Formats: sequence, C-alpha cells, structure tokens
Amino acid sequence: MTGKLYVVGVGPGDPELLTLKAVRILREVKCICVPKSREEGSSLALSIVKKAINIDGKEIIEAYFPMRKTKDSNKSQVTSNELKNKKYPEDLSLVTEPALSLSKGHSSLPLDCELDTKWQETIDAVYSRLDKGIDTAFITIGDPTIYSTFFYLHDGLLDLNPELNIEIIPGVSSINASASRAKISLSLADERIAILPANYTTDLKNALERFDTVVLMKVHKVFRNILNVLNETELLNKAVYISKVGMEDERIIKNIRDVKEEDLNYFSMVIIRK
Amino acid sequence: MTGKLYVVGVGPGDPELLTLKAVRILREVKCICVPKSREEGSSLALSIVKKAINIDGKEIIEAYFPMRKTKDSNKSQVTSNELKNKKYPEDLSLVTEPALSLSKGHSSLPLDCELDTKWQETIDAVYSRLDKGIDTAFITIGDPTIYSTFFYLHDGLLDLNPELNIEIIPGVSSINASASRAKISLSLADERIAILPANYTTDLKNALERFDTVVLMKVHKVFRNILNVLNETELLNKAVYISKVGMEDERIIKNIRDVKEEDLNYFSMVIIRK
Repeated sequence: MTGKLYVVGVGPGDPELLTLKAVRILREVKCICVPKSREEGSSLALSIVKKAINIDGKEIIEAYFPMRKTKDSNKSQVTSNELKNKKYPEDLSLVTEPALSLSKGHSSLPLDCELDTKWQETIDAVYSRLDKGIDTAFITIGDPTIYSTFFYLHDGLLDLNPELNIEIIPGVSSINASASRAKISLSLADERIAILPANYTTDLKNALERFDTVVLMKVHKVFRNILNVLNETELLNKAVYISKVGMEDERIIKNIRDVKEEDLNYFSMVIIRK
Repeated sequence: MTGKLYVVGVGPGDPELLTLKAVRILREVKCICVPKSREEGSSLALSIVKKAINIDGKEIIEAYFPMRKTKDSNKSQVTSNELKNKKYPEDLSLVTEPALSLSKGHSSLPLDCELDTKWQETIDAVYSRLDKGIDTAFITIGDPTIYSTFFYLHDGLLDLNPELNIEIIPGVSSINASASRAKISLSLADERIAILPANYTTDLKNALERFDTVVLMKVHKVFRNILNVLNETELLNKAVYISKVGMEDERIIKNIRDVKEEDLNYFSMVIIRK
C-alpha cells in the first residue's frame, strides 16, 4: 500500500490558526516535508507547526528550493511572458526571485537544469516515503492553493504514480487573516475582489476601476509605484498596509502614507477597499 | 468592563476545518450569536460549531436576518447600482435574495424600515450582553471577511460604543476549501485572481481575459449564461464546478458540461483556471 500525501496549509503564522484537521494529520503522520529557503535558514511553516504540536520522532524532509538572485541574474533574455508561464515557489522567495524550475510543459532553459534537479530530488524524497507506505505531510504557510509551493511538486509526483492518494487540507490564507486583523471586509453582497501581484501597474489601474476590493501581493519592491497609482486614482485613503500577519512583529498601518522603508518586507500586502 | 466581541469564522462546513483559536474562543464565551434565515430553519454556522464543541449552558442569540423573495419582490424600481451600494448578508440567502437592510450611509427606502428594525434588534441584543461584561462570539460560515454577515452589524455596534473591543478570527474560506478539494492552485508566482459574483456577464469576459484564475460565486441562478460565456471564450475545459464544499453532500464536477439543474444551489462556485 502506497502512503497518502497530505498537503497541509498551516495558516499565516499564528499557531492557533491551524485547523483541527491540520493538527490531527500532523500528529498522525510519521514524515513531514518542509519547504526551506537558503535566505530564511529554517522553515517558517515548520516553526508554526512546532508551536502547535510535538514533532519529536517524526522524520523531517527539508525540501530545499533553490532561489536565484534577481540582481545577479543573467537571465535578462527571459521575457516577462516566459516568466509568467514558469512555475516557481512564492512563499520561499523572501529576498530573491525564486528559481525558475519544474517547468513542466515548457522546455527548460539550460540554466534551469540544476534547479530542476533540486526539484526532482524533493519529488523523489517524498515519493520514496510514500512508496514505503509512509503517510507524509507536505506543509505550506497560509493556504495551499494561494501562492504556495506544493503545486510545483504535484505534477512530478503524479508522473511517478498517477494513482497517488493526495489530499489537500485548506488553511487560513494570509489574505483573509490580514483583512481580519485590519477589520476590513473584502467583499459584501455583489462586490468583486481582485488579488494581484503589485508589479503590474497597468493592471492595477484597471483593477482599481473594475473591482470593489483590490489585494496587492509582493508590494515591498514596488511600493513607491503603488503609492503613485493610489495618489493618481485618489485612493490613498482607502488603502491599508499589513505586514507579517499573525507573526510576532505583525504591522498594520492604516494610513499608507506612514509606511517607511524599514516596514517593507516580503510578507506584506496592501488592501484597497473602495 | 464591557465584554469583548469575537467574530469567528467557522470554515465552510467540515467541523475539522475550525481553527484551534475558533474552538478555544467558542468554548470560553458564555454567549454565541448565530445568523439564522427563515429558509434554512436553523443556522448552518451553529450546526458546524455543535459538531466540534459542546454548547450546553451557553446562551444562543439567534439573529434572524429577514430575506425578501426575489420573484415576489416589488422592488424592481431599485437599480442594480443601488443594489450594489446596499449591504446585505450573503451566507443566509439560500433560496432568496437577501433583504436590503442596514443601509448605513444610504437613505433607506420605505420598504426597508421593518428590515432595518430587525438588524437593529440584533445589534441591540449583542450589545446588551457586551454591556453586561459578557464576552460574546458572532459566528459566520467560512471567513468573516469574505461575503459574510458580520460587517452589517459592525458599524451599528460601533455607533453604540466606539471603544468596543472587537476581534475578528479568520477562518478557512469556501473558496480555498473548494480549490483544495478540486486540487486546483488558485495562483502561482505572478498570477492574478478575480473573485466575482456570476451575475456580471460583461465583467466575466473582461476578467477571463485579464486574470489567470476567475472564481465565480452565486452561479446557481445564471449558470446557463456562464456556460455560454465559457463556450464563447473556449474555456469550458478549464472550469470546475464545486458545490457544498466540506458538507455531507459536497459535489465536485470537473467537466462543467455535466452539471445538471438539480446540482445547482446557493453553496456553489465555478473556478476557471486558464
């Protein structure tokens, strides 16, 4: 009997935001696979789990997802469209752009070979446990369906065994947690929500016109651009900045003009509620 | 000392998707306020909570949110824009359009007077407990910031006491739960998500063009229109229908052409992943 793979969303940071189901499964499994990035040094998802349950005696597979520095990158020949079609993990890319890897369905560029190998190593490591009948949990911060790493492994695992038993356990996403902390309703009645990375300035204007609520992810690198667009569209007063929701150094800044350079970081978002 | 109001998201239906924090708070509070609609007869949110904790000895305030039948409505003079600017609870309107009520900041139409009174009764009932120092939980299915009822009460409660201590506990939203069950990633990397009620056909086409993932809520009444738009845009093969996620009669229909009239209900959505 092949083991079952549980993909478990562990919520945004507060260990109390784990679900009962996540806790039960993480207690039951013998093996936990944790995404880990070089920049963090340790897994944020695992640190959340450790606060809620005792992991002594469990095997921990550290899935190292290599990142490529943006500034050092010599990949300027990659067009934005190619970037868009590539899959890469977001919740690991604290200070760098993530590696372009696991480009299933797209021909890999030569530079990606080493990175694809790393991904394949993680797939093989997880699969070898499942193949021995060991139930395994792959943990991911927030919710597994929102900008999380698991789906980079999904197809590779199914390639090895199309009958693999995979269950995805949803979690509280950082978007919902941020709105709760800022006491903002994301939507009522017939309202429309757009969730988009902050780097599309044209899309931002369009979204601000057409949607009642716009959630901007990855705001740290383009924060001044966002302020400019919000100023032009007279929406500065409707925007809230939330950073590291549910973590010890959480920040909620209701007047977005007060956000300082040192407040900006990867775990941040802006919610604009018209 | 005034009591604290906890607004608790109880997840989409599976009691195991309650968070540890939700369970702790619901155990601690002496009073739980539950939204209830005439059509359901009982509160779905309370039925979820009852499966997870023992509520014996707690006071239950049933907040009856009156609904107005769509077909019987003589409110055809209300424009769609007026409708959009009105606030009304979504997770209660199982078979009818919800009542237009609690129109803070908008002048009430005469027909709304009775409904506003009902809302005010709920505000007063909750506030009277808080005023006696009784911590109270207002429960809502899914996540409190996504199409939930609480924000209709929020302003009214703060009108009574601007210093009121309110904490919102995020929950697993039905959107994330549905994507998990259908094993769909809503977003990777730089992808964009639009969440919109299904009744805006023009917006739907625009969103399908501009967004990588479109989540359509309230699909049951306009399902044929959705199929037509998906057919025109050649996206029929990219759409999944999910109904009553986490409930006993959950349905996941991966080929949207297979959805039958009897499969359609209020607790359903379509996720289009391009």
